[in-house]
Amino acid sequence: MNEQLKHFIQSNTPQVEAEMFALVEKIDAPTHLKESMLYSLKAGGKRIRPLFVLAVLEIYGKDLKAGLTVGAVIEMIHTYSLIHDDLPSMDNDDFRRGKPTNHKVFGDALATLAGDALNTLAFGILARMDLSAEQRIELVNLLSVAAGAEGMVGGQVLDMEGEQRQLSLTELEHVHVNKTGALLRFSIESGAVLANASQEDRATLKEYAHHIGLAFQIQDDILDIEGTTEELGKTAGKDVASDKSTYPALLTLAGAKEKLADHYQLAIAALDNLQVDVSLLREFAAYIVHRKN
Amino acid sequence: MNEQLKHFIQSNTPQVEAEMFALVEKIDAPTHLKESMLYSLKAGGKRIRPLFVLAVLEIYGKDLKAGLTVGAVIEMIHTYSLIHDDLPSMDNDDFRRGKPTNHKVFGDALATLAGDALNTLAFGILARMDLSAEQRIELVNLLSVAAGAEGMVGGQVLDMEGEQRQLSLTELEHVHVNKTGALLRFSIESGAVLANASQEDRATLKEYAHHIGLAFQIQDDILDIEGTTEELGKTAGKDVASDKSTYPALLTLAGAKEKLADHYQLAIAALDNLQVDVSLLREFAAYIVHRKN
Repeated sequence: MNEQLKHFIQSNTPQVEAEMFALVEKIDAPTHLKESMLYSLKAGGKRIRPLFVLAVLEIYGKDLKAGLTVGAVIEMIHTYSLIHDDLPSMDNDDFRRGKPTNHKVFGDALATLAGDALNTLAFGILARMDLSAEQRIELVNLLSVAAGAEGMVGGQVLDMEGEQRQLSLTELEHVHVNKTGALLRFSIESGAVLANASQEDRATLKEYAHHIGLAFQIQDDILDIEGTTEELGKTAGKDVASDKSTYPALLTLAGAKEKLADHYQLAIAALDNLQVDVSLLREFAAYIVHRKN
Repeated sequence: MNEQLKHFIQSNTPQVEAEMFALVEKIDAPTHLKESMLYSLKAGGKRIRPLFVLAVLEIYGKDLKAGLTVGAVIEMIHTYSLIHDDLPSMDNDDFRRGKPTNHKVFGDALATLAGDALNTLAFGILARMDLSAEQRIELVNLLSVAAGAEGMVGGQVLDMEGEQRQLSLTELEHVHVNKTGALLRFSIESGAVLANASQEDRATLKEYAHHIGLAFQIQDDILDIEGTTEELGKTAGKDVASDKSTYPALLTLAGAKEKLADHYQLAIAALDNLQVDVSLLREFAAYIVHRKN
């Protein structure tokens, strides 16, 4: 990883996490509920979405403070979706990132409610931010679309339905554009909202985000084949074993790598339309496609 | 039921329902997900919360239109909470209002996601309303607090924990003030926000709402003992059979009725502080305490 990006990630990740924990610590709620919410928030992760919010603010030379809060909110939404995904009625996973999943520790009922509480809290935190009412309401609206039936939750439903049969490439892309792409696009677009970027720049950044989202997913599929369980922190080879619709399954491994390179190039090319120093976002793209976990 | 209230309920309930269904129909989401969301929204119910929003607008002589949307949003939150409550990992109910529960029709996974989608959609609809950004952001903030860990979800957690042991009266009241009270208070407060009521009036209306919420719950507990399964549309006598902490269990049936009368009087008394014709809210209070289902 490039030194600029490495420094950026290392210096900002602890701040995003501190902000997120503080926002949950201070609510007045039953002890066990807060414990369950915090357990999954503290279970780690790359914090890629919050870091994208901050990276956009950074390229515009803006203060990162508001980005820490919006980033924390996005990570809460991401975390609630993982808690619900892991439930016995969904993916039935006992471990995530090497730790017992929320419902294995707190029970299915409390895990369900902790997810609900994180989802709900996210919108309240946006509403209470120190921004103009117009900016706050825009963020609430964009997040609701990105995280809900028209975005992440809708993608999750399509993904579930796709497990019953082999998807076409168009269908597979549609799943990922919603399931993981929508929240990633919101991360980058919310950074643009906070930076007061022009509508043209926002469109460019959304284009970048679209390709980054797909590249991220394709690399995930490739790593399932090429990575080791040790590197990944999760069982390698699961997709092939479960006969899941993936990019390598549909395009061959070589074809998937070509598709990954295409999206990487398109993401980088989009950045040429911006009049600011985009090296940080360029490095982020390289990191996404070259990552080993 | 008084004629004025009867007319108010009969003329407005279909409008709230039409608004709610239209708001969900128009989202761009997977077919099965929308079906699952609409199934529970269409499963009936008294629509008390939306009607309270409208009643507050009515006493101030305001147009009810915005209240239909906010009322629809509140009913979405209430409905998502019922879908999740009915799940096998929670109350494990197969029927609600005489119909199979959401997960019995759509499966546990889709029911979980339909609940998540309704929760998320509610905030987006508020954000897109034709109101000032300040009003919209105030509604988002109030709803997040009322529906989340500090309100409804928190109350749900306390209620679950209370099933393990007999609660004190203070604890029982705390459960209800959050579990059902918070969303009911939001219904009335959001009506006040839409009506641009003064801060003094809002405080008065919240006082009214607090007592109405508790009266509603106490009457629920009494009906479980005095009502018939036919009248209630659900199994009577369940609380006693399951040894649940209720007002009659803690205070005797006569004591619970006394408590109900106290909250009714306090709700009515609070209304004296308002300078508008409060007869509709007075009738609503009478309906809450005298209802048979």
